Amino acid sequence: MSPIHQVQFHTSFPDTSAAIDRRIPEFAPAHISDEDKYFRNHEPPAYLPEIEKEIEQFIQFHKENTNRRIVLVTSGGTTVPLENNTVRFIDNFSAGTRGATSAEYFLENGYAVIFLHREYSLLPYSRHYSHSTNCFLDFMTENNGKIEINSKYTEEMLLVLRKYNQAQANNTLLLIPFTTVNQYLYTLKSAAEKMHVLGSTALFYLAAAVSDFFIPKSRLSEHKIQSSATVDGQLQINLSQVPKFLSRLVDNWAQGAMFVSFKLETDSNILIQKATTALERYHHQLVIGNLLQTRKNEVVFVTPNDSHWIKLTEDEIKDHIEIESRMIPEVIKHHSEWITQHPN
Amino acid sequence: MSPIHQVQFHTSFPDTSAAIDRRIPEFAPAHISDEDKYFRNHEPPAYLPEIEKEIEQFIQFHKENTNRRIVLVTSGGTTVPLENNTVRFIDNFSAGTRGATSAEYFLENGYAVIFLHREYSLLPYSRHYSHSTNCFLDFMTENNGKIEINSKYTEEMLLVLRKYNQAQANNTLLLIPFTTVNQYLYTLKSAAEKMHVLGSTALFYLAAAVSDFFIPKSRLSEHKIQSSATVDGQLQINLSQVPKFLSRLVDNWAQGAMFVSFKLETDSNILIQKATTALERYHHQLVIGNLLQTRKNEVVFVTPNDSHWIKLTEDEIKDHIEIESRMIPEVIKHHSEWITQHPN
Repeated sequence: MSPIHQVQFHTSFPDTSAAIDRRIPEFAPAHISDEDKYFRNHEPPAYLPEIEKEIEQFIQFHKENTNRRIVLVTSGGTTVPLENNTVRFIDNFSAGTRGATSAEYFLENGYAVIFLHREYSLLPYSRHYSHSTNCFLDFMTENNGKIEINSKYTEEMLLVLRKYNQAQANNTLLLIPFTTVNQYLYTLKSAAEKMHVLGSTALFYLAAAVSDFFIPKSRLSEHKIQSSATVDGQLQINLSQVPKFLSRLVDNWAQGAMFVSFKLETDSNILIQKATTALERYHHQLVIGNLLQTRKNEVVFVTPNDSHWIKLTEDEIKDHIEIESRMIPEVIKHHSEWITQHPN
Repeated sequence: MSPIHQVQFHTSFPDTSAAIDRRIPEFAPAHISDEDKYFRNHEPPAYLPEIEKEIEQFIQFHKENTNRRIVLVTSGGTTVPLENNTVRFIDNFSAGTRGATSAEYFLENGYAVIFLHREYSLLPYSRHYSHSTNCFLDFMTENNGKIEINSKYTEEMLLVLRKYNQAQANNTLLLIPFTTVNQYLYTLKSAAEKMHVLGSTALFYLAAAVSDFFIPKSRLSEHKIQSSATVDGQLQINLSQVPKFLSRLVDNWAQGAMFVSFKLETDSNILIQKATTALERYHHQLVIGNLLQTRKNEVVFVTPNDSHWIKLTEDEIKDHIEIESRMIPEVIKHHSEWITQHPN
């Protein structure tokens, strides 16, 4: 049996986008945007054409055969290498729980899912058995030279396995990995441009924790930074802001689709205001706000007109209800309205 | 069946060592070392007493019942939080392959292993089935409402499962997690102090990729760093050097044991020289040097008198021989000599 369609290469290391030969000259005209400068100054990952082909085939398959709506779910944190031969990097806290869980509920609700995820972060279905103490081995027992799944786990595991096999049989889940913020940005751009043909039936659910700051290639140390590079025992790292690509995504790459972004904060006093500012700045449809401390039990949906909380009750938390089982039907309702208002 | 003894809590988030109430005063006398200052200025993780008890029991069990040598293997990268409510952190590139693989060969060679590892990094035995595309689910098929392991995987999996069960039955593997560099340092210190009673039969195999730089708690931003905190769109991060604890480990915490440290570089020109410098500085017994690019196929053993390479042949690489199967018997030979020279 072949696995869920997974593009087969490793993004973790090395970042094959190392070469810089399209640098924008110093005399670049001022009207070139930060986003364009970014793409001119940073090489795409070498494997990008392969990914583009996969995505194109996936979209084509569903356009021709199933007419399913397609959602691009981004998940997990991006890394920012501090060295070209990367030993150290800045990372964003994210196991990928939100993205992987949400993807399952999109699948259950009839969507086809392009799952753009941090390599080795949680994946739909397998998430139930990974990132645990001993993935795999604790569930198995040897019996007469055969391996059996311990009967006490069988019932729950069968439910997961069936859904996984169904996604496989229906070709509804495409797994695309990234590691660095550069890989993420290039892949998102390519995927969005391919999804453009879907018009308003395309949905972007941007749950990945994307770095706000990075070190441009031109300033990147070639080898591992040595302790001797410090001044008075201090090492200073200067980070530039990652250009804000959301407006480019909304206005150009996949114009006409619906976009959901996330806002994660640790300070509850600024959450809704920051979500509202994002909506104003990028002109998209929905920001889901959440606090690091309570993100598994409550989120706030912020639209241009409204904000309302979805909160699990004490009983629901005790029963291990996943908040994504409440969120995704709500997101889909918004998407249906969007499609009605913007027929292709 | 209970899993391999794993201390049951999560280190990933939050770092419960957040409070700072033992800060060293500004007028601290000059004779206090950087290491002591570190421990005075940073709180231990709240769970440390629990870990200390586990380690003590493990050591006691083997002293009384098995007389096995005990090795502490450290594995995976430590993180350095950039915020107190951690959204962003600096990480070191390490999946934990070296540590997890080495631990298996120590177990096969009769050692009991304390496996001090980055939470969610690779673990002995389960490593064979984790960090893959779809841990678990791709190995299983449903048959008459039961779950079976696909027969083509059974043979190899049985070998792993038996070794795993044996380590469990013999109580030879203790898993201790960490995430931040602060958790790592405190846990290493505690473990070493407990292992002191073992004298020269204790071995330290320090394969973890420990941060060289960190942000002291006193300078740590409480909440997620906002883009607005930048100056001209640049964010400056000032890192201090993590004090070098190896000399403290060698000279005090576990004096009399044998110590193996690792040196990972990306520049081959400085590797052996850096290994030699480390030996001179910390007065320990063995540095294993490796280059990021070739670390799975060759390493160099550097002792005060000698350096020699262990390299896999082309055929061995093709046959998926793990270099740790060559390294560990060699390390054990050094340890045996050490014990002979330093009888307890």
